[in-house]
Amino acid sequence: MGLFITFEGIEGCGKSTQSKALKRRLSRRGFPVLLVKEPGTTAVGRVIRRLLKHKLEVEIDPITEFLLFEVARAQLVAEIVRPALKKGRIVISDRYGESTLAYQGYGRGVDVATIRNINEVATGGLKPDLIILPDLEVEEGLLRKGAASANDRFEREKLSFHLRVREGYLKMAHADPERWLIVDATLSRREISETIWKRIQRILPESGY
Amino acid sequence: MGLFITFEGIEGCGKSTQSKALKRRLSRRGFPVLLVKEPGTTAVGRVIRRLLKHKLEVEIDPITEFLLFEVARAQLVAEIVRPALKKGRIVISDRYGESTLAYQGYGRGVDVATIRNINEVATGGLKPDLIILPDLEVEEGLLRKGAASANDRFEREKLSFHLRVREGYLKMAHADPERWLIVDATLSRREISETIWKRIQRILPESGY
Repeated sequence: MGLFITFEGIEGCGKSTQSKALKRRLSRRGFPVLLVKEPGTTAVGRVIRRLLKHKLEVEIDPITEFLLFEVARAQLVAEIVRPALKKGRIVISDRYGESTLAYQGYGRGVDVATIRNINEVATGGLKPDLIILPDLEVEEGLLRKGAASANDRFEREKLSFHLRVREGYLKMAHADPERWLIVDATLSRREISETIWKRIQRILPESGY
Repeated sequence: MGLFITFEGIEGCGKSTQSKALKRRLSRRGFPVLLVKEPGTTAVGRVIRRLLKHKLEVEIDPITEFLLFEVARAQLVAEIVRPALKKGRIVISDRYGESTLAYQGYGRGVDVATIRNINEVATGGLKPDLIILPDLEVEEGLLRKGAASANDRFEREKLSFHLRVREGYLKMAHADPERWLIVDATLSRREISETIWKRIQRILPESGY
């Protein structure tokens, strides 16, 4: 029934690079693999991404923000992820439900149990088989992202917010070590890829497809 | 703490006309009154309205659709309704949470308890003091709307869908007669307005503002 792998983590942790690297490596081994990204990828998701990333005249309410991510997630799962998994594909997602728990829940103070419930509704209960968390000091992550995206609402958030997000991620990962892989994001790209690859082997179907 | 009145009902039942008439009447009596409309009114809501009303390349999933209405509702409450009520105003809304229960729940089969929960989250538990339901035969309502809006996704839905929506409304109204006012929408505009006005008197602050 396919395999669903997600990448999570704070800004600048290298999850986009690593998700692409994992996709290439799986493709080379002949696995049918698909890489998606929240909140974009679908047409609905792209509209929502624009709403979230750019400043409106009026500030977006935290509950509205949280629900917007859930909308993008619902459409992504219904339109792309679930059909691909049904065909036996490997789906890699750059961010998923745990991002909302970390950013809107731990970071912004929306009730975590409420987010879990609505994640469940939005995804019809679809959970990742593996969640990869490249972990990094917040200051280092923000430094890596640099000023290139200084206009992004999320990057302008103050440090304490990002510290809460990182703590949230680590808390979730420690609470469910079977599903999460924490990787030291200060290692070289190659070392990170190798750590991820070793873990992936344990859940890959042995025979390929 | 203000007064929150919503209008609900199937297409063509006359709720937009009646909500405007009620607003004018309250204004003339010197009440500070505000009329809003779901899912538009806010900047976020207008983007969502465009997403919902116009056909995308890909069909919108029912859960996505439901969550989009919740996003618009969350922002409307946070940005406009709650601040206005805090200032002691009367807020009239053309559609609110009961529309999602009727259309996405009873109409499209999304779990009604789930919608109730997420309505609660989106609105922070804000419920109308009075819900006005101009009730009409579905065939009559669709006839009234005519072909003018034949490109609207909702109006193209088949009859059985609208029948379920109307039944859902009536079920909710009969279950909570204190909060709901069912009005016969085949009466003249004037008679409908009078029926509504009589009921409004019971909850209006006697002294005015």
